Amino acid sequence: MGDTFGLLFRITTWGESHGSGVGVVIDGCPSGLQLSEGDLQYELDRRRPGQSKITTQRKESDSVRILSGVFEGCTTGTAISLMVSNEDAKPHAYDHLKDLYRPSHADYTFDRKYGFRDWMGGGRSSARETIGRVAAGAIAKKLLQHWEKIKTMAWVEQIHDIKSSVDKQSVSKKRIEASLVRCPDPEASEAMIARIHEVRKSGDSVGGIIRAVVRNAPAGLGEPVFDKLTADLAKALMSLPATRGVEFGLGFDSVKLKGSEHNDAFVMQEGIIRTSTNHSGGIQGGISNGEEIDLRVSFKPTSTINFEQDTVTREGKSLKLKAKGRHDPCVLPRAVPMVEAMINLVLADHYLRNHTSRI
Amino acid sequence: MGDTFGLLFRITTWGESHGSGVGVVIDGCPSGLQLSEGDLQYELDRRRPGQSKITTQRKESDSVRILSGVFEGCTTGTAISLMVSNEDAKPHAYDHLKDLYRPSHADYTFDRKYGFRDWMGGGRSSARETIGRVAAGAIAKKLLQHWEKIKTMAWVEQIHDIKSSVDKQSVSKKRIEASLVRCPDPEASEAMIARIHEVRKSGDSVGGIIRAVVRNAPAGLGEPVFDKLTADLAKALMSLPATRGVEFGLGFDSVKLKGSEHNDAFVMQEGIIRTSTNHSGGIQGGISNGEEIDLRVSFKPTSTINFEQDTVTREGKSLKLKAKGRHDPCVLPRAVPMVEAMINLVLADHYLRNHTSRI
Amino acid sequence: MGDTFGLLFRITTWGESHGSGVGVVIDGCPSGLQLSEGDLQYELDRRRPGQSKITTQRKESDSVRILSGVFEGCTTGTAISLMVSNEDAKPHAYDHLKDLYRPSHADYTFDRKYGFRDWMGGGRSSARETIGRVAAGAIAKKLLQHWEKIKTMAWVEQIHDIKSSVDKQSVSKKRIEASLVRCPDPEASEAMIARIHEVRKSGDSVGGIIRAVVRNAPAGLGEPVFDKLTADLAKALMSLPATRGVEFGLGFDSVKLKGSEHNDAFVMQEGIIRTSTNHSGGIQGGISNGEEIDLRVSFKPTSTINFEQDTVTREGKSLKLKAKGRHDPCVLPRAVPMVEAMINLVLADHYLRNHTSRI
Amino acid sequence: MGDTFGLLFRITTWGESHGSGVGVVIDGCPSGLQLSEGDLQYELDRRRPGQSKITTQRKESDSVRILSGVFEGCTTGTAISLMVSNEDAKPHAYDHLKDLYRPSHADYTFDRKYGFRDWMGGGRSSARETIGRVAAGAIAKKLLQHWEKIKTMAWVEQIHDIKSSVDKQSVSKKRIEASLVRCPDPEASEAMIARIHEVRKSGDSVGGIIRAVVRNAPAGLGEPVFDKLTADLAKALMSLPATRGVEFGLGFDSVKLKGSEHNDAFVMQEGIIRTSTNHSGGIQGGISNGEEIDLRVSFKPTSTINFEQDTVTREGKSLKLKAKGRHDPCVLPRAVPMVEAMINLVLADHYLRNHTSRI
Repeated sequence: MGDTFGLLFRITTWGESHGSGVGVVIDGCPSGLQLSEGDLQYELDRRRPGQSKITTQRKESDSVRILSGVFEGCTTGTAISLMVSNEDAKPHAYDHLKDLYRPSHADYTFDRKYGFRDWMGGGRSSARETIGRVAAGAIAKKLLQHWEKIKTMAWVEQIHDIKSSVDKQSVSKKRIEASLVRCPDPEASEAMIARIHEVRKSGDSVGGIIRAVVRNAPAGLGEPVFDKLTADLAKALMSLPATRGVEFGLGFDSVKLKGSEHNDAFVMQEGIIRTSTNHSGGIQGGISNGEEIDLRVSFKPTSTINFEQDTVTREGKSLKLKAKGRHDPCVLPRAVPMVEAMINLVLADHYLRNHTSRI
Repeated sequence: MGDTFGLLFRITTWGESHGSGVGVVIDGCPSGLQLSEGDLQYELDRRRPGQSKITTQRKESDSVRILSGVFEGCTTGTAISLMVSNEDAKPHAYDHLKDLYRPSHADYTFDRKYGFRDWMGGGRSSARETIGRVAAGAIAKKLLQHWEKIKTMAWVEQIHDIKSSVDKQSVSKKRIEASLVRCPDPEASEAMIARIHEVRKSGDSVGGIIRAVVRNAPAGLGEPVFDKLTADLAKALMSLPATRGVEFGLGFDSVKLKGSEHNDAFVMQEGIIRTSTNHSGGIQGGISNGEEIDLRVSFKPTSTINFEQDTVTREGKSLKLKAKGRHDPCVLPRAVPMVEAMINLVLADHYLRNHTSRI
Repeated sequence: MGDTFGLLFRITTWGESHGSGVGVVIDGCPSGLQLSEGDLQYELDRRRPGQSKITTQRKESDSVRILSGVFEGCTTGTAISLMVSNEDAKPHAYDHLKDLYRPSHADYTFDRKYGFRDWMGGGRSSARETIGRVAAGAIAKKLLQHWEKIKTMAWVEQIHDIKSSVDKQSVSKKRIEASLVRCPDPEASEAMIARIHEVRKSGDSVGGIIRAVVRNAPAGLGEPVFDKLTADLAKALMSLPATRGVEFGLGFDSVKLKGSEHNDAFVMQEGIIRTSTNHSGGIQGGISNGEEIDLRVSFKPTSTINFEQDTVTREGKSLKLKAKGRHDPCVLPRAVPMVEAMINLVLADHYLRNHTSRI
Repeated sequence: MGDTFGLLFRITTWGESHGSGVGVVIDGCPSGLQLSEGDLQYELDRRRPGQSKITTQRKESDSVRILSGVFEGCTTGTAISLMVSNEDAKPHAYDHLKDLYRPSHADYTFDRKYGFRDWMGGGRSSARETIGRVAAGAIAKKLLQHWEKIKTMAWVEQIHDIKSSVDKQSVSKKRIEASLVRCPDPEASEAMIARIHEVRKSGDSVGGIIRAVVRNAPAGLGEPVFDKLTADLAKALMSLPATRGVEFGLGFDSVKLKGSEHNDAFVMQEGIIRTSTNHSGGIQGGISNGEEIDLRVSFKPTSTINFEQDTVTREGKSLKLKAKGRHDPCVLPRAVPMVEAMINLVLADHYLRNHTSRI
């Protein structure tokens, strides 16, 4: 259970790393949106393994097919089914893992939940599951663009102990994509790439922090009680693999300020109500206030490493595991489109909800 | 919309600060649980304003009544309705706020969403809404206790820049409740109390961080894709007023480690599979692994302060606001039972889901 | 579980016949609708026991209170909580039923499901539960009226073997309410009243059929797959106590026609696309076509009778039960507002959904 | 929206008659159920067009593929994706229908809802959508069989004015499948086949009634308020194309009896509590009582006929439509597996819910 996300723009993903493919069904996309496979492919290519020297070398073209829900180039208002075939599934690469649990993977917890060991590359817990999210997110992105030119932009802010420094206002998609690690600070980008090469060689891995902003989000998105925009975004982002924390606006650092320092004063600017600061990250009382939405997500270092590690078998025998073969030393660059997708899915859902908030 | 939370243990809260009361309906509590108003009152008393000198002085007894769903002392399996009357509602204390927006409150965003200014103490955005959550959480707590003695325990870890230092293993409910601020480090507790008195006097406010652990949670709670335990807990906690961030296990600090340092090795201990470290905070791949669940939530400083602040009216006129009357200089001590309630609600929901995960 | 109904206009009812009261929380009513307790009371009075000589003589004023969700006379967009206190609860009138199952009531099935015998007047299965539905339905009715003057009208078409004959076009609320049994055919009305008096005297009961039409429903309500308007109406109506069947348009009689006879031809009338006949009852492919929605619901004879009946105790001992005290010989007149309420709840929900069906 | 059905055993169907295929994703199937494509294919073959001389002659093999959710022959507990490719899609067969509305189809209402005319064979409103339901229903059937040998059996009871007469106890799957029209009364079966041939020749169509029973359903299925078993079955069945009514037990005929005649007395039989009659059709107060569940669904005559009919174009021009090409004169025989599938989906969902009804 729990393969479904959203209330009005609702997606259900399916598929394992070892099966015939992965996909998603979107229930609730309004009719009349122009949509082609090209719209989806761009985002999938950003998520794709093997896209650069610093990601995993699994070779997948990840070509998406629209199986339903589009008629004469436009969405129909009914279920949109998207599918990507698996090409480079090598289940037997995992033969030696059949009976043991890889540390900090979902191997053990999945077994405890469902009563079997899906040893082929993580099965449903594989990061390939996120293909469906990214494809659906590309549709959400088109809706948001159509409605109010709402634009979500994520980038790598930190990898391991290398922090970037950027003027948020100057960040653009172009500058982000110009960096192999999707970090718009050229100096930090260099250092991050070097660090990733270094840990790859040593068989190790590193994590990091992704920053995301949303521009042009109108005021009024989010519900005042449980479905706060912060709450739904937090759930969305924490449902991505390897995430460990999320924060909005000043986040954990807000603790250092007093109320008199943290409160965002209201001011008039060109006839519009604005805040003079944006410590709240664009969301107050769980509802967007029209300022830039600003958040950060942390990803732990990838669990797959080529190190000898202590582990146990299903039968409880202790042994040493040394993973072999390809591994992804840093998931952050590929996680950027995943973060954007999850944010866009939440925004599209709440935008639709707002169609019903007043008589 | 969005006043409902949960799938199988589902709660709907209602009520405003200025109305006749607040309450909650729980749909999905199994039949046969012994339940009395006393079970609920204990937690409500911990959440109650006016319980000590360091909280807001609004005078409320917050006496809860069970209106339905309990028969001969046990839950019936059908809707449980709980209600707390408002006693100290003073709507006219807010008369001077009718047409303006208090900075960093939900006043402005609520108006932008719904088209009117609910000026009486925040209306639906009032923290009184959390009474329903805490009451429902007390039922979840009883279920968790009944099932497997699952025990959730939260405490104040930091207020403003005052950090506590505790041996996590030695923390107990008793030691937490012994502190007015619910911080089990006596020295830090003293300093926190002093800081709160200080900001109260100056009309200012402070925020902080709440730490929570769950003991005896069985392995297998949480779903592998969207409804990860981390994701659902993140949503639950970020739906509390004034929260700005949440993290699990090492959280944002996990970024500092490499995979070889962060991975939790599996070991056998007394015939049981355990991890030698718990960097994951008891949740791997979104599913609990039987170790202690460990998380942190940050709360910004309270928005209500007795300071002169810049703001604007509904009509866009700039002016100075100086709030008067009672204010809560630090919500953290009262937020402890709220955090526990949200965690227990999520755990009860996922525990019930697990009844259906295998044939 | 299952005390909640609806997706966007979502209600959760609570309460038992023997508790302190019954109520409902509505999550999803848009903001800005003028609403007073008087709006709700009118419908509750039509549902109230003791309103005329032909209904049950339980004495209840069924006065409704709005506990939340209305501010300065208008809905707020957040949870609306409504409550009616129980006044004439006489739990001890049921003492003799503690250990046995009344035939064709929910006594036995409820016990098999939840593991206890809620012997006080049916507990959660009492028809008092429908108070929450009728109150919420009155809000839905106001919304429908506000949006497009959509008007739902139900009446008693048949009681026992007494069938009415009315010209559907001439039926009006006024003519329905002029009849004690809510049957707008004066002759049949007389006969029905006589039949009810007759079975009351003999301690027996009768059922019947309610007919309902919806005028001014726009085309486009209902979803094409699972949430067809027919499907959601069928669920709504079959969730009322004592219902045994539902049909739309020609219903079961459609079977007698061939396709060439049953198909509703499209014609132009005053520049608008209409159908020349309405065999479909205003719904085609699960979606309203702008014609009058037309349906029928059957209610079995009430289970409570003052007859000696065979039954068994919880322990499986056979015995004779003779119910004593007040009984409702025919629920049909009071079921009319319940049927209207359920239809209005479904229509309001689908109307809101349609706000999101196109970009 | 609304392409999703169920709470715990939740299915989302997708696909149009003219696209690349149709399919379904099942979210919530427990892990550990043995499942192969063969299990699904049997039911799909019963639903398949072209299976006999009396159905539509569209040629489809309807071969199903399991794309995810099965590992080493057993369900994984995560999303199961099933797909059937379209083989005989002939979109250009519909070219002449581009701008007009076929009477009593969903053409007009779909356009009014979504703003476009999906003229290729009904698009999402095509009966091919039910493939996903039947495939998912086959999984539900296996679960029910595994749990308690619960067995759902449907058959054709009436076509046009030809009524069958069977001893319900003697009906078996074998006797049903022995008849081309799936009517276990051999004499009626003959007459029905003749009638279908007759209307096919004349280009007309007929409807009918399907009867269904469920054997071995345990007591306790269904929820007492909105999600009554009757209510959820009614929704499920009325969501099938061409349905016009549904009734349980005596259904509309219950009206003819008085309470003293209709009530099902409780009796002890071999140490078990039973009812001496089953007028309630196995469901009391919305919850199954352990007796045979008994229901009937009516289907109107198919809308596609080869007759000249009055209709209008999108632009409101009146004209005569004469459909050409293949048409299905009677959908009833193929609707039998659809009815069984919908019943099994509801039962599996409620069976899972019952895992959580008691502590």
